[in-house]
Amino acid sequence: MKRVEGGICAVNGVTASGACEGDYGVSVIVSKNSTASAVFTSNKVVAAPVIITKDAVEDGRLSAIVANSGNANCFTGQEGMEDGMQMAKIVADKLELGTKDVAVASTGIIGRKLPMPVITDLINEAMENLKNSPKASRNVAEAIMTTDTFPKELAVETTLEDGNKVRIGGVCKGSGMIAPNMGTMLSFITTDVQASAEELQSALKEAVDKSFNMVVVDGDVSTNDMVVIMANGRSGRIDGKFQEALDYLCTELAKMIARDGEGATKFMEVEVKGAESLEDARSAAKAVVSSSLVKTAIFGADPNWGRIVAAVGYSGAEMDEEEVTISLKSDENMVNIVDNGVVKAYEGSKELVTAEDVMESSDIKITVDLNLGEYSAKAYGCDLSYEYVRINAEYST
Amino acid sequence: MKRVEGGICAVNGVTASGACEGDYGVSVIVSKNSTASAVFTSNKVVAAPVIITKDAVEDGRLSAIVANSGNANCFTGQEGMEDGMQMAKIVADKLELGTKDVAVASTGIIGRKLPMPVITDLINEAMENLKNSPKASRNVAEAIMTTDTFPKELAVETTLEDGNKVRIGGVCKGSGMIAPNMGTMLSFITTDVQASAEELQSALKEAVDKSFNMVVVDGDVSTNDMVVIMANGRSGRIDGKFQEALDYLCTELAKMIARDGEGATKFMEVEVKGAESLEDARSAAKAVVSSSLVKTAIFGADPNWGRIVAAVGYSGAEMDEEEVTISLKSDENMVNIVDNGVVKAYEGSKELVTAEDVMESSDIKITVDLNLGEYSAKAYGCDLSYEYVRINAEYST
Repeated sequence: MKRVEGGICAVNGVTASGACEGDYGVSVIVSKNSTASAVFTSNKVVAAPVIITKDAVEDGRLSAIVANSGNANCFTGQEGMEDGMQMAKIVADKLELGTKDVAVASTGIIGRKLPMPVITDLINEAMENLKNSPKASRNVAEAIMTTDTFPKELAVETTLEDGNKVRIGGVCKGSGMIAPNMGTMLSFITTDVQASAEELQSALKEAVDKSFNMVVVDGDVSTNDMVVIMANGRSGRIDGKFQEALDYLCTELAKMIARDGEGATKFMEVEVKGAESLEDARSAAKAVVSSSLVKTAIFGADPNWGRIVAAVGYSGAEMDEEEVTISLKSDENMVNIVDNGVVKAYEGSKELVTAEDVMESSDIKITVDLNLGEYSAKAYGCDLSYEYVRINAEYST
Repeated sequence: MKRVEGGICAVNGVTASGACEGDYGVSVIVSKNSTASAVFTSNKVVAAPVIITKDAVEDGRLSAIVANSGNANCFTGQEGMEDGMQMAKIVADKLELGTKDVAVASTGIIGRKLPMPVITDLINEAMENLKNSPKASRNVAEAIMTTDTFPKELAVETTLEDGNKVRIGGVCKGSGMIAPNMGTMLSFITTDVQASAEELQSALKEAVDKSFNMVVVDGDVSTNDMVVIMANGRSGRIDGKFQEALDYLCTELAKMIARDGEGATKFMEVEVKGAESLEDARSAAKAVVSSSLVKTAIFGADPNWGRIVAAVGYSGAEMDEEEVTISLKSDENMVNIVDNGVVKAYEGSKELVTAEDVMESSDIKITVDLNLGEYSAKAYGCDLSYEYVRINAEYST
């Protein structure tokens, strides 16, 4: 497996375009006659585009995705449904497709009517510029940004067991309201693998569970989120190699979201090992990465491992505080701060000095070994900074 | 029922004292030969004093409580257990009691050995100054403060159905790491009611479930928390009137904790009505009060009701977005921002202007009516400010 240029357009047969005006952006991705699958927000309040796309993808087929940023088209009633359908219809008409061949996604503020004249203009503009080029993928990634500070895209290539080279490209956006089971997070993935809708759904779910669902920015869960994959079948049959590449792509995209969490100044990866079950490993990793106290300690470069232990303790995971081992790691340093329940980083120890050093790093890896079983999981997050508070105190006004 | 002066010392037969030095404080509360009960943190990592007090209260009897601030005596191994037992022993010896007649509590930083010389001196100092006076109760409330900005105490008097006047006094401390199932929260309650340990436990649990367990500051759950009640039996028999007074006392103390949440500039009360079950009402109220996005919106005086709806949506509570009604209320103003699923506070509406006005208030009440059933619950919290980040980024260093 290797990384390749071009994002979603690294995949043969995919065209794309993005257009922006003021607070609004529109992206269109076309991959005709694709097998398709999607994963949606777990929030009981769902935006109109979520309802529309669930319906569109039900037959396991899609030819295009249209997405807008700046307005979530959520809590907008029947009018919101009509606006979302209209978005799909404009794209479908131009491509001579049915409305149900087009997925719709929205991100932005909740509860305001979509400004359809602007959105319509942007869709039309995007439709006129559809291309298969790295720049087109970049434009898509940029047009779906909200409080994101950088566009997020990636493409990988791997060789399938049948000898065919397959590519997977993805774009995504964060960056607040990111939580397990997906925050305000959109990701669109293209590939030329051959797969049935069921195979694609199973592969996507497996990848999302260990990537997008393990990212926490603030613990809120959005009303709008979705990951959509379209597979146009120009390459070989789906297999374990494809899964490996899809897992990698989704994980790298998820890490970009964590790294670009609202107000984030530092990235943290938390690995929990030695758990009694996969569920325990995931709960514990997510609890640490979600803890406001851990997040502020990371921001303040404070090696307050007590907060890490406390978060594992309330995560619901089985643990024995006399067995737990905790280490901190940066690119340059690694230190065991608790070793089988014995505190190493006590006041005056060299371990504490190293721990303080590691905490100054902008990339911090926390490893918690519960020493109880065979399961492990990783979660991704960021610090909680003054800037997070500023961004979210000022968002809608 | 009326409020009375004197905190825990409003109760006949109770003596108390507090002593402080530098970062450390010690409180002692004596209520000899009391029936007693306690509720503890749900964290799997528990501090030594939690283990000691669980054991002490097992026979349903206590005569005293000793508590220290500045150090949590958590993750301190066998030495920590010995230190905690020693705290109990000093008090027990002076009062000619058994060690198991004394409950022990600690709050402060995790993972550092208790500085026993300082703690011993402070316990001795407190033991020499035991008094039944309002000032003694105030000293107790002050000595257990950590990042609290004001001491928290209250006493109430009510008339039991048997005609006896009964009093209940309480002190507590917050103020970060406060979450459902109790954060770094200690509360000590005295009363002269007559009750068996079982009756007391049931009354305490009922009161805690609707008060301390409904306060959220940052969603973290501490390793140290406990609520202890001692009843010396000098007044009449426990009954519904007592429960009512205990509920009120605990709720008022819980509100003080929310009001004094780390970095809090505003207090919020969230009431969820019309839920299908009590569990749904509680989950939904806690989700709103815990949401970082709602908390920052409150800080920024931004009437972003979409974040409220989204939090209810991911709380797990049954809801239908077309039925929900949301109102905001300050001391001066009240406004329906969503009415049976219809947004009232849209751009340009007078409702939005009023909503903005309400959000400027320092006391904000959010009411969410799910319009589905008969159950309701209230949760208490505060905003998420720059100051919360500052306090917690700098705590241990």
